[in-house]
Amino acid sequence: MSDALLLQLEIDQLNARYAAVLDERRFDEWPEFFLPDAKYTVQARENFDRKLPLALIALESQGMMKDRVYGITQTIYHGPYYTRHVVSPALVQEDEEGGRIRAQANYAVFRTRPGDASEVYNVGRYIDEIVRTPAGLKLASRTCVYDSEMVLNSLIYPI
Amino acid sequence: MSDALLLQLEIDQLNARYAAVLDERRFDEWPEFFLPDAKYTVQARENFDRKLPLALIALESQGMMKDRVYGITQTIYHGPYYTRHVVSPALVQEDEEGGRIRAQANYAVFRTRPGDASEVYNVGRYIDEIVRTPAGLKLASRTCVYDSEMVLNSLIYPI
Amino acid sequence: MSDALLLQLEIDQLNARYAAVLDERRFDEWPEFFLPDAKYTVQARENFDRKLPLALIALESQGMMKDRVYGITQTIYHGPYYTRHVVSPALVQEDEEGGRIRAQANYAVFRTRPGDASEVYNVGRYIDEIVRTPAGLKLASRTCVYDSEMVLNSLIYPI
Repeated sequence: MSDALLLQLEIDQLNARYAAVLDERRFDEWPEFFLPDAKYTVQARENFDRKLPLALIALESQGMMKDRVYGITQTIYHGPYYTRHVVSPALVQEDEEGGRIRAQANYAVFRTRPGDASEVYNVGRYIDEIVRTPAGLKLASRTCVYDSEMVLNSLIYPI
Repeated sequence: MSDALLLQLEIDQLNARYAAVLDERRFDEWPEFFLPDAKYTVQARENFDRKLPLALIALESQGMMKDRVYGITQTIYHGPYYTRHVVSPALVQEDEEGGRIRAQANYAVFRTRPGDASEVYNVGRYIDEIVRTPAGLKLASRTCVYDSEMVLNSLIYPI
Repeated sequence: MSDALLLQLEIDQLNARYAAVLDERRFDEWPEFFLPDAKYTVQARENFDRKLPLALIALESQGMMKDRVYGITQTIYHGPYYTRHVVSPALVQEDEEGGRIRAQANYAVFRTRPGDASEVYNVGRYIDEIVRTPAGLKLASRTCVYDSEMVLNSLIYPI
């Protein structure tokens, strides 16, 4: 059991580093949390629950993630905002399959626009497949399933 | 000390599973977190602090919890909403009495109604008595003491 | 590695106790989380990022913290409100220098005024230097860097 508990801690550290990279706007480091062929999806809960394919963001490799970062930092015109991720301790699923750890964690992302109060931006849960590599835990897939049916303005930065 | 720290992790896992059951609307599994004679109370902080008995919800056994779940899922007419629990790492109290672990954890519950933005719904702390059983940690009592004096609309689902 | 993970747990306990003291309004206990010559700073992210000195609160010793507590509880006239801290698991930095542990954690503080709904009050991150003492972990410095450029009304209680 102690191993499972320590695994929770490792995943909490992963989530904390992930949040720090996004909130501190070190976007170039964001793809490094993933395996080269990893999937990153941001999907409304309604679609996820009904197994509908439509997703707000669906990236199917680390290359696509780097493209996204290029878009965010170099080309997309958008009003700037700060994000702040508050993430609950991860729930480690027991049925590890083929060396893949399955975990999930509830998150709340708060947004602050210049000169404005902070507001609830996006709440939901991370559903993850994680692989242990020589470079530490890496995401094989992260699906951000958000409750919010109305996404406040356009979602620019990764969740 | 290491044992106390591992206990915190176990309680964090309990809280994460508890949140997942409620947020994923698997309400039938909710009473299973409790002992048969457990108490579940949702009470305003104002009343809790003054030791006043009035509570929004006061269930005094697992049977009453099952009744509540039946009400929620079968009979109460209410506008649907999603909940999302974000819970801080638990604070494990040192004075374990008679085999009962005492712990508390701050929570924020966000609500999302169809077609609407997510909003802060209920914030407060869980005050728990927990017992170790052959089936894992079980709640002997959970008191949800919420700050919000004005509960947004009626509170239907457990906190 | 296991030591680093246990350190995360200890810091999570520190943060949970810290939050409990503030949210339960046991302000007299708040300075005890710090070393005698510790610094406590609450600063807007904009100023922090640009290394500008202006801060909303800048206390440079435990004595100044006790003064502040005296002000809060005895002399400052202000509308009362409840706070609720929800804090993510801490991110422990690897480069421990001179016996100082460096850690950070994202937080969201919710405020509830009498008769009102809870609202997002202040979100940001704690940036900490922590020292191990015979009395447990103590803060050598805590900087609360908040995203919110517009602080809702005046900030009275520590973050």
